[in-house]
Amino acid sequence: MSLTAELGTSTAFDLGPARALSCRECGHETPLAAEFACTQCFGPLEVAYDFGTVTRASIEAGPRNIWRYRHLLPVPADVQEHPNTEPGLTRLIKADRLGAALGIRNLWIKDDTGNPTHSFKDRVVAVALAAARELGFKVLCCPSTGNLANAVAAAAARAGWDSVVLIPASLEQAKVLTTAVYGGTLLAVDGNYDDVNRLATELAAEHEDWAFVNVNVRPYYAEGSKTLGFEIAEQLGWRLPEQVVVPVASGSQLTKVDKGFAEFGKLGLVEPTPYKVFGAQATGCSPVAKAFAEGHDVITPVRPDTIARSLAIGNPADGPYVLDAVRRTGGAVEHVTDEEVVEGIRLLARTEGVFAETAGGVTVATTKKLVESGQLDPDAETVLLITGDGLKTLDAVSGQVGPTATVPASSAAVRNALADRD
Amino acid sequence: MSLTAELGTSTAFDLGPARALSCRECGHETPLAAEFACTQCFGPLEVAYDFGTVTRASIEAGPRNIWRYRHLLPVPADVQEHPNTEPGLTRLIKADRLGAALGIRNLWIKDDTGNPTHSFKDRVVAVALAAARELGFKVLCCPSTGNLANAVAAAAARAGWDSVVLIPASLEQAKVLTTAVYGGTLLAVDGNYDDVNRLATELAAEHEDWAFVNVNVRPYYAEGSKTLGFEIAEQLGWRLPEQVVVPVASGSQLTKVDKGFAEFGKLGLVEPTPYKVFGAQATGCSPVAKAFAEGHDVITPVRPDTIARSLAIGNPADGPYVLDAVRRTGGAVEHVTDEEVVEGIRLLARTEGVFAETAGGVTVATTKKLVESGQLDPDAETVLLITGDGLKTLDAVSGQVGPTATVPASSAAVRNALADRD
Ligand SMILES: Cc1ncc(COP(=O)(O)O)c(C=O)c1O
Ligand SMILES: Cc1ncc(COP(=O)(O)O)c(C=O)c1O
Ligand SMILES: [Zn+2]
Ligand SMILES: [Zn+2]
Repeated sequence: MSLTAELGTSTAFDLGPARALSCRECGHETPLAAEFACTQCFGPLEVAYDFGTVTRASIEAGPRNIWRYRHLLPVPADVQEHPNTEPGLTRLIKADRLGAALGIRNLWIKDDTGNPTHSFKDRVVAVALAAARELGFKVLCCPSTGNLANAVAAAAARAGWDSVVLIPASLEQAKVLTTAVYGGTLLAVDGNYDDVNRLATELAAEHEDWAFVNVNVRPYYAEGSKTLGFEIAEQLGWRLPEQVVVPVASGSQLTKVDKGFAEFGKLGLVEPTPYKVFGAQATGCSPVAKAFAEGHDVITPVRPDTIARSLAIGNPADGPYVLDAVRRTGGAVEHVTDEEVVEGIRLLARTEGVFAETAGGVTVATTKKLVESGQLDPDAETVLLITGDGLKTLDAVSGQVGPTATVPASSAAVRNALADRD
Repeated sequence: MSLTAELGTSTAFDLGPARALSCRECGHETPLAAEFACTQCFGPLEVAYDFGTVTRASIEAGPRNIWRYRHLLPVPADVQEHPNTEPGLTRLIKADRLGAALGIRNLWIKDDTGNPTHSFKDRVVAVALAAARELGFKVLCCPSTGNLANAVAAAAARAGWDSVVLIPASLEQAKVLTTAVYGGTLLAVDGNYDDVNRLATELAAEHEDWAFVNVNVRPYYAEGSKTLGFEIAEQLGWRLPEQVVVPVASGSQLTKVDKGFAEFGKLGLVEPTPYKVFGAQATGCSPVAKAFAEGHDVITPVRPDTIARSLAIGNPADGPYVLDAVRRTGGAVEHVTDEEVVEGIRLLARTEGVFAETAGGVTVATTKKLVESGQLDPDAETVLLITGDGLKTLDAVSGQVGPTATVPASSAAVRNALADRD
């Protein structure tokens, strides 16, 4: 049963409450399909909905994963009948010790390292897979340098789909292994990430049953990030936080967290209280922070050079929409150096026992900078998005941390080592 | 408010429903304290309880982590008021594709890689920390070769406690980093794991405020594994599975999963339907499987030699109790070679998109062997425990998996590569 069908909208696809694709630039609407660019103006397409009645109780009665929000996502109502990953409902933890270190009174961490492949990408990929199935695709694909590759290969494996994952041939061995283990097709491409991305667009045009999650099904895929906003609100006890800090690569996630908060407000699931959205970038790839600081509406692309590789998108597709959301809500976009990123990872681990990847270090360090510069209110309830896992970026801390001491196996030696330390 | 206080039991400590420590060998009872061996017979001590009324509704109304079972654990009722990790309520996923590959009709995977440090050790450490706090300890400690070290260092960090983690100096760099990042005291000890373990016992005797989770607070710590049994039963819709396969190192976890099922039955939370418990070991460290096969009650220690390092305990403390539980329920203990372990990891990843560490490979491969040998009933509902994460044991798959092909950045090259493959 689909809401669109009920409402009599004519569409061949059952994507639940999704009604059409709508251009973010000119508003032109087009039927639900595997499209991503407006035929009128080439602007990016976004999913438009007719939501039915969704209540807190109906959500709470749902499964303990993102499918509890299925009536707010572009997926069929029976999405759970088909094999897919079950990401989401990751921990929202009170972070009093990090809060004390940063001078923030009321701080929370959304710890998305608990997802199946340990990053928020499992959310977007699960939604992309569900939509791709309905749209008639047969193969799940992506260009990626890491987290997305893991998530696509894993989801395809669980669903029994073939997958084609494209990575730059220079990728670190660990990231190759953690994708290859799922057994799909993994192609190492001679070239950098931009070359890989271009190849993906070419292949999407040539293979009509290949769903490149972040290319030809991007409008559906992107909606998966709304669930981060939904979960934060539900886990706070059905209310919105006052401030949220989100790492920015393409910028998609930030805009969708904002969209998630806004939809919950419009649907009456929470009081539509004001909130500010903040963006976090690494200095070595900070085109959105630069545009924000300079008051520009257009983003000047950069060539990324940072250890925060998962955020290293020099030409962020959703950059202008990040600027919109941040300015509209009264937030800001800031950036931090690679040294600060490592210090952010260590601070979070030391205070909260959460080991984040470089993207998490960017979020923590940026938050510190935002407090120090007075842009973030230390007295307002704040949520930080920790979107990826430290186990995937061990290089960032190697050489930085290690054993306190090496000792012989005697308690006297341990006493001496500890005494030396104090 | 503690149940023991209500019942008028005289004890200085509020550990919720825990009433006393009781010897597993002679039954001698001793008051709750930081003890682990019986004063009468040196047998291992276990927590004895007076449970109050616990209902499905009271559990379901609890938090989305192991503390929903706090009235069944040796922790104060206000356990959530103190900073600690919030492990548990990890995914129980239907594994139809793995089931088809193994010939098991109704198969589930309990995916404990979703815990804060990605292994089931977060459960036992969280309970140990809560009990240690009540028992008056100030420092959280352990000897470990990996998962436990991560869990202890992370939990201490979040709680704001000092930690002392002892590891063999030869440990892989990755495991050193993933412990050191949390900032506690990490001592690399010249010697093997047995030396490290002995040193821990010595240090526990000398430092009265040091809680070695798996030594002097072991009775409390071990209870944390009951939550795996509780969750499986709750997530199946308040019923017990017919078969469960558990990896065995010290054997503690297996006996506690059994205890969890039994307690749920006795408390009327589930129908006490029969179930069989199976143990899984690597051939290179299979003392319990050997004793089982030979019909012995005593375990002959071995010197471990297997890639499944987290299971490499040659002299398993709870081995005899594993034999009891397995024989009593009609299960078995089997073992698999390192090659089978790797194939188990790959099979699980390929069919379900779950990337497990070597211990998970042991569980999957042993299950295959148990089906093939007719010891496990392929028509009975079965749950496999996946207790640790593949990201921590990448060496096991390196050299085994890799890119399908390396290609130039052209769609023609991709077509050729795929054609060659087919
Ligand atoms: C861990 C992590 N966090 C955040 C992001 C940013 O996502 P977006 O491209 O939606 O801005 C990424 C993107 O790859 C990521 O891998
Ligand atoms: C991932 C993993 N699984 C299973 C076990 C086995 O636990 P036990 O010692 O309780 O048998 C361990 C023990 O270290 C482990 O690290
Ligand atoms: Zn348009
Ligand atoms: Zn005794």
